[in-house]
Amino acid sequence: MNQAIGVIDSGVGGLTVAHELMRQLPRENLIYLGDTLRCPYGPRSEDEVKQFTWEMVDFLLHQDIKMLVIACNTATAFTLNELQTQLSIPVIGVINPGARAAIKSTKHNHIGVIGTEGTIRSNAYTEALLGINANIQVSPLPCPLFVPMVEQGILSGHKAEDIAAKSLEPLKAKNDIDTLILGCTHYPLIKDTIQTIIGSEVTLISSSEETAREASTILEFNDLLNGGRETPAHQFYTTGDMAMFAKITEGIFRESSDSFQSVMIEKAIISNP
Amino acid sequence: MNQAIGVIDSGVGGLTVAHELMRQLPRENLIYLGDTLRCPYGPRSEDEVKQFTWEMVDFLLHQDIKMLVIACNTATAFTLNELQTQLSIPVIGVINPGARAAIKSTKHNHIGVIGTEGTIRSNAYTEALLGINANIQVSPLPCPLFVPMVEQGILSGHKAEDIAAKSLEPLKAKNDIDTLILGCTHYPLIKDTIQTIIGSEVTLISSSEETAREASTILEFNDLLNGGRETPAHQFYTTGDMAMFAKITEGIFRESSDSFQSVMIEKAIISNP
Repeated sequence: MNQAIGVIDSGVGGLTVAHELMRQLPRENLIYLGDTLRCPYGPRSEDEVKQFTWEMVDFLLHQDIKMLVIACNTATAFTLNELQTQLSIPVIGVINPGARAAIKSTKHNHIGVIGTEGTIRSNAYTEALLGINANIQVSPLPCPLFVPMVEQGILSGHKAEDIAAKSLEPLKAKNDIDTLILGCTHYPLIKDTIQTIIGSEVTLISSSEETAREASTILEFNDLLNGGRETPAHQFYTTGDMAMFAKITEGIFRESSDSFQSVMIEKAIISNP
Repeated sequence: MNQAIGVIDSGVGGLTVAHELMRQLPRENLIYLGDTLRCPYGPRSEDEVKQFTWEMVDFLLHQDIKMLVIACNTATAFTLNELQTQLSIPVIGVINPGARAAIKSTKHNHIGVIGTEGTIRSNAYTEALLGINANIQVSPLPCPLFVPMVEQGILSGHKAEDIAAKSLEPLKAKNDIDTLILGCTHYPLIKDTIQTIIGSEVTLISSSEETAREASTILEFNDLLNGGRETPAHQFYTTGDMAMFAKITEGIFRESSDSFQSVMIEKAIISNP
């Protein structure tokens, strides 16, 4: 099955999921579509998020993808069930993989979740966690400064640690979570900074890593893994400015230059951009 | 879907998988069948392992299970593909989940695998790892003393550490794996001892934990999770001596006495015991 895995995101955060897919499934072809023109989805209405997401899905279905990964928390919260019901290919989102990994990791059933205001307000992680185990204590915390910080390239150092310390203070004060879900696909880029502030005894769960892991599970379970030996191709599309998208993509993929060689950045034409 | 998850093993090692299923999926009903009478499967022929495994599967299918977990490395190596093709319910084994988790964890693409002589000789982990990523360096090592050590109850302390140090010496000497797969369902019981010897910088992958995690993924993906609120029931069957099986089961489940309350141990009647 050498058809590509399709990955959609409201912008560039989902590139951390694409990066993990390329690392954990190095034989798979990938098509990524980031809706940077209309990013962020967080403050938008449910109807709008659904419409935009379906437009991205239609674009990728025309490219004959074999699996869809929704690499955006907001889009996952609003469209996962609908897409799973209506598409004939496997569809996975970023929320349940993180929740499941946290449940595997926790020793004392107390899990923290950080995310954007929208994601935390949606309660999606809390529902996913309690849906599996009603005895889990969940401590959710919005960290609205983290996405702007990442987008400005402030990933480590004193300034990043100051922001992280201030943002995570409510969780630090409780001092009893043993596992923390990074409930936003931007956060893996500041994982080291978050670990420094929250302490080494807390296990960080990256929804990007875990989503790639579950994509691997579901592909194998459905006999959809690519058994071919050709060098895989990775195509990256954006609805917005190509130069800026290319710069950010290069930043994330700088450690895997081989894969970046085959990256093609085009302006995606979707039905109603 | 309140039907049970069925778990089969050649004996008691798979109880660590059952324990993880109960921890990570606390709402699910479970039926465990351990073929302690004919354990171990490791030295047996492929035909014999297949015949015994099918007998266990038939026993559980009569109990209307919704998923089958093969919690034994040897049985997984010989029967997983056949069972996945022939049964109408999802079937998962213990090898691929550990391999996928190791690929997610490794930083430098060098993974160690320890297991029984049979499992290491079967090459199943190496094939699973290289099947996903041909650039992984795999260092397999049989540890034939670990199962007898666990079955004698030597789990920690000087004696356990001496045996572990001697067994793991070839891997220690290389000193460059960053991830180690515990490729035997007995090994989670001596995880702390192995970690002490191999060093804290090596990430240990428990195939039991990872198999339970993937069972959770596959159940949700197939819409088979138990949404009910009743207290789950766990039934444990053995083909061999009940008193000894009960003692070992109690040892493994001593931390979760609630669940153990509902354990029913019966002598399993299988078609050709």
